[in-house]
Amino acid sequence: MTNRIAEGKERNSKIKRLRKLRKLIAEKGLDALLISQPENLRYLSEFTGSGWLLISGQNAILAVDFLYVEQARQESPDFEIIQIKQELHDWLPGLVSDLRWRKLGFEANLISYGGYQKLGEVIQAKQINLELVPTTGIVEQLRSIKEPEELILITKAVELADAVFERAKGLIHPGMTEKEVAWEIEENLRQRGSEGVPFEIIVASGSNSALPHARPTEKAICSGEPVLIDMGARINGYCSDLSRTLFLGKPNETFQKIYSIVLKAQATAIEGTKSEMAASQADQLARRAIEQAGYADAFGHGLGHGVGLAVHESPRLGLSSSDSLVDGMVFTVEPGIYLAGQGGVRIEDMAVLENGKARVLTRATK
Amino acid sequence: MTNRIAEGKERNSKIKRLRKLRKLIAEKGLDALLISQPENLRYLSEFTGSGWLLISGQNAILAVDFLYVEQARQESPDFEIIQIKQELHDWLPGLVSDLRWRKLGFEANLISYGGYQKLGEVIQAKQINLELVPTTGIVEQLRSIKEPEELILITKAVELADAVFERAKGLIHPGMTEKEVAWEIEENLRQRGSEGVPFEIIVASGSNSALPHARPTEKAICSGEPVLIDMGARINGYCSDLSRTLFLGKPNETFQKIYSIVLKAQATAIEGTKSEMAASQADQLARRAIEQAGYADAFGHGLGHGVGLAVHESPRLGLSSSDSLVDGMVFTVEPGIYLAGQGGVRIEDMAVLENGKARVLTRATK
Repeated sequence: MTNRIAEGKERNSKIKRLRKLRKLIAEKGLDALLISQPENLRYLSEFTGSGWLLISGQNAILAVDFLYVEQARQESPDFEIIQIKQELHDWLPGLVSDLRWRKLGFEANLISYGGYQKLGEVIQAKQINLELVPTTGIVEQLRSIKEPEELILITKAVELADAVFERAKGLIHPGMTEKEVAWEIEENLRQRGSEGVPFEIIVASGSNSALPHARPTEKAICSGEPVLIDMGARINGYCSDLSRTLFLGKPNETFQKIYSIVLKAQATAIEGTKSEMAASQADQLARRAIEQAGYADAFGHGLGHGVGLAVHESPRLGLSSSDSLVDGMVFTVEPGIYLAGQGGVRIEDMAVLENGKARVLTRATK
Repeated sequence: MTNRIAEGKERNSKIKRLRKLRKLIAEKGLDALLISQPENLRYLSEFTGSGWLLISGQNAILAVDFLYVEQARQESPDFEIIQIKQELHDWLPGLVSDLRWRKLGFEANLISYGGYQKLGEVIQAKQINLELVPTTGIVEQLRSIKEPEELILITKAVELADAVFERAKGLIHPGMTEKEVAWEIEENLRQRGSEGVPFEIIVASGSNSALPHARPTEKAICSGEPVLIDMGARINGYCSDLSRTLFLGKPNETFQKIYSIVLKAQATAIEGTKSEMAASQADQLARRAIEQAGYADAFGHGLGHGVGLAVHESPRLGLSSSDSLVDGMVFTVEPGIYLAGQGGVRIEDMAVLENGKARVLTRATK
């Protein structure tokens, strides 16, 4: 694929995304939508800095401060770049009034209570006829269903994490510290082209592995104990997420047992997860398997989460999730059992929903 | 210093911080304050995960979900750890009602508009007699004035960045790409004990250096052009921030000129900055020097910012800042001149206010 064709495709996908978004904006009866969530910005405009998008039926404005003007021009040539000063309430009311928008949607979980209050005060003081409408998940909904080009990048990020994991697996030996292993992995990820790491790598051994969000410590790894590794790569903005639990030498019976329970729970969830299913139902599949094995209380997090430009995005595969699963969604399947003071096991793959079924993307050995 | 003494000091400083905070809470007529800003959490409790602190005259509660319970117990043994489920509105109203708090302060810039609305709905539905009071900058105000132990850690982070910069300076040669230089620096920072990097390292050469927030690219560095490096280290949570602009070979007259203007503006600002001064006045010192040299429009950002557990924190040294400078504050002094299409120069040191004057912490050569 030549660069010119690649650029053409890029542009087309941006135009398509804007078209879909404008349809959603119109359906909600809004004149425009204000967007600041960083991955939403990047998804719609390619802009990777900090700023505000304002999308209406006619306009596609990217508002940034001095620091980002040059970058915005380079990354988002199809958008109208405006330079803003200071806080939202200093510039937004004037702009909205000039454009005669009456109903402006905003990301309710991105604008702080304090920011909203100040904005309201200025709008009232300037007697601007504007209704601020809280919205959630509009762009996130578009992002949750991946285009073929996005799936290619995600697959590359998965393959990179797989390869780096396999290499690390061959290197780890008793006596290495968790931090040493984490740094080995990070160095190798970056050397092979990962754009940084999408999240801090977890290497948790022994009882540390009972902490689902452990940070690597100076603890040396012993043989026989669990070593939980959670890592990811990033390619062109797209992330991967991979967890494995290793044992150097033979684990004790408890860990042999919980490892096979977690593995079986994962297989059950992957086989049973179908398009048009409630995301909470997918979670139930794994949860029931773990409950039946007697570890109901030891699986305290959800089954998984969407992965794309963000390492955690829509859909959420958890008991209280109201998301539905649809073809094109990419998500993790990561059941775990954690025994405080002893250790834990988590096994995490990434999968995409295609033709109604979950196809596993991850190839790292288990 | 033995570990036991260090731990005792740690504990004392935590107790002092809580005492000061409780005084501020009482002065504002609040029963308690809800805190979720990550550095505020760490400052008060040592907890480095994600969760909520609830501080009243009597209580010091750390509320975390399943993922962080073990970590919270380990990091914050003096706090009452409670395990929560789901969102704020699911657990906070019940807890507050049990504790009979009537006026609860919250961080107005941390709670989203959406989160606040949901909380309000539950409080109303459950008929709980509670007033939610928006606050800003309470813990940040405490954090802005550094304790001697904090200054030691910040100084270590400054020294680490200085040493890594000097090494990199000796290694950079024409033909190296910006990304290669950035990776050299990051690798060396980590090898020498930095906890990751507090922000993405900037290496911007030639016209890229006109973008104050440029990301390292595959562009090779040429002799004679500016190479702007902005980097920092982190030690025990505390950050440093350092910018230098280098030239491999002789720069042209324009860059010779703007380099000396920026350098002089920085010296003027450092000499003139005093305790009890308005932070905006410090900014003015450097800005006037740059304006008088004819580059008024080319210095589009503020003079500096506080540095501590966060790489950007209170005070803000900018034209529109309402902060006042006080002994014990640690901040950057970083004037710059950016010429679009040509390149830019920024020189950044860190300084601490002591005995009324700014003492420069940075030692990297200019």
